Amino acid sequence: MINNKKILSIVLGVLLLPIFLGCCKCRKTELLSSWHDGQAKREIVEFIRDSTTPGNKNFLPVEDRIVVFDNDGTLWTEQPLPFQIFFAFDRIKALASEHPEWSSQQPFKAVIEDDQETIKTFHTRDIVKLVAHAHAIEDIDNFDTIVQDWLATARHPRFDKPYTSLVYQPMLEMLEVLRKNEFKIYIVSGGSVEFMRAWAPEVYGIPKEQIIGSTMELAVDMNEDNPVVSRLPKLNWNNDHGGKIVSLARILGKKPAMIFGNSDGDLEMMLYADTADTPQLFVYLDHTDAEREYHYNEETLSGKLVRGRQIAKSRGWIMVDIAKDWKRVYPDE
Amino acid sequence: MINNKKILSIVLGVLLLPIFLGCCKCRKTELLSSWHDGQAKREIVEFIRDSTTPGNKNFLPVEDRIVVFDNDGTLWTEQPLPFQIFFAFDRIKALASEHPEWSSQQPFKAVIEDDQETIKTFHTRDIVKLVAHAHAIEDIDNFDTIVQDWLATARHPRFDKPYTSLVYQPMLEMLEVLRKNEFKIYIVSGGSVEFMRAWAPEVYGIPKEQIIGSTMELAVDMNEDNPVVSRLPKLNWNNDHGGKIVSLARILGKKPAMIFGNSDGDLEMMLYADTADTPQLFVYLDHTDAEREYHYNEETLSGKLVRGRQIAKSRGWIMVDIAKDWKRVYPDE
Repeated sequence: MINNKKILSIVLGVLLLPIFLGCCKCRKTELLSSWHDGQAKREIVEFIRDSTTPGNKNFLPVEDRIVVFDNDGTLWTEQPLPFQIFFAFDRIKALASEHPEWSSQQPFKAVIEDDQETIKTFHTRDIVKLVAHAHAIEDIDNFDTIVQDWLATARHPRFDKPYTSLVYQPMLEMLEVLRKNEFKIYIVSGGSVEFMRAWAPEVYGIPKEQIIGSTMELAVDMNEDNPVVSRLPKLNWNNDHGGKIVSLARILGKKPAMIFGNSDGDLEMMLYADTADTPQLFVYLDHTDAEREYHYNEETLSGKLVRGRQIAKSRGWIMVDIAKDWKRVYPDE
Repeated sequence: MINNKKILSIVLGVLLLPIFLGCCKCRKTELLSSWHDGQAKREIVEFIRDSTTPGNKNFLPVEDRIVVFDNDGTLWTEQPLPFQIFFAFDRIKALASEHPEWSSQQPFKAVIEDDQETIKTFHTRDIVKLVAHAHAIEDIDNFDTIVQDWLATARHPRFDKPYTSLVYQPMLEMLEVLRKNEFKIYIVSGGSVEFMRAWAPEVYGIPKEQIIGSTMELAVDMNEDNPVVSRLPKLNWNNDHGGKIVSLARILGKKPAMIFGNSDGDLEMMLYADTADTPQLFVYLDHTDAEREYHYNEETLSGKLVRGRQIAKSRGWIMVDIAKDWKRVYPDE
């Protein structure tokens, strides 16, 4: 038979359970299981703990818990080229039959003919032109499916895996820990919002409206009161370097509490955010792992980290050494 | 002495309490106490109930619960002129001593001299010029305080009250109900983000990053690695009419589930959003209350609702008749 004492302990247990569960929810930094217990992990965990502990001098109210992630090279791989460029090349090929004029026009001709020698000579403006044309569409509502269909079949040239499986497992864990601690997660990327929004919500759990990136020109056709938005093959906003500062100021209107980046392209926004008078943490990923991923150097085309490395040192920002700090790089390792 | 039966009912009570509280949280439509129980309230409450009831044919997962509010005339009063224009006039006067050239230049001269006859002849381009110059600042970090200081002393010409007390009580209640039901609330306004972000987070509980509006040009000065963003006296984006469509496409990347507006300036985005294949509700406020607020007509400068009224009728959108549907208009009535 149940006695009063037993029932009282059940009552107490039930009453205390939410508090216990609440604590777990607030702290779940043990979720960072793919991280070695090095200095980088320790400092990040400490910041998250302090900023979510009422009374701590580094406590941040929920509305200030804004964290920004770069995408290429920070949340997923960006070598040998940012994956969006592979998408653009394949999309140009798929569109070639609708654009017979491309067969004699560069940079389209080289892409359509897989002319690697010419592709190697491309300037940034050629890449931008290709990406812009790959994004052009009569009704933007149909674009997600195009990207999703491509992702379903395209394979990474070195790893022979879908691109979406080349996300960083330790960073997926970081996103999860931050979400559990009521941080609002934004992507601020040099890549296009249009491309990222097609897959990042599912892959990262970051909603479309929290993805900021480069954008193409849009055009509105009111279409007899059933408006259709088309996208023109023209860059509207280049969201890299100083462009990231303007996006923080214009779209967020706040200086984030944390920024995770991996290249000099993230440096300006990190410097800009680093002038807030609230607790902050800045983290750079250092791509040091040629075996499991890539070892960047000063010649790396995408994601070069030179000036950012010096500044990080002088400002005490955290450097994550991928070879040393990560137990594994990809989810399926 | 406590017997087992009593203790068991306590246990049951404690166990059931979260479920009960959960229901309250999900349903809190009784918070709409400033609304008469008319058709408008009934239809809005029904939509919120259905879209948050799992299994209902109109159920919306949380990530799709995006609701957009226009600001001027939808969340607060916009007569006799949108309040931002009063701010701009006062700001121009305050800046006049730094700009001696304005004393002989229109539209500045008329504002500085309070020359109402000339002010009445202003075109939209004059207003835009004044607003843009009122927003110009060397370091955007200092702008919130300027707006807040103005709001602390400025008074509405008819009601002789602070502008922030001329928010609509029934709409504050609507925001609260939507928040409780896990809708993510955005403002999409023709007004400038810079002005709204200075007070709307506190007044409406809507965070800065969920405020979209017209914007001015920004300039970045890297300032020896301590970047400063200044705002130039030049319109960057006019977020009205078709501009609101582009902002939904570019910044949200989603068609909202609900839109609340009050003028033809909201019509285009409502028509655009109304092409989604998920449950949606569109609501127009009809300013019919000359006594407690304003009765708009076809000559009303700001917030005219003519074409939108016809479309609302043909599409079955909800019309809120302020005189009939609201028990009170302002919080302190």
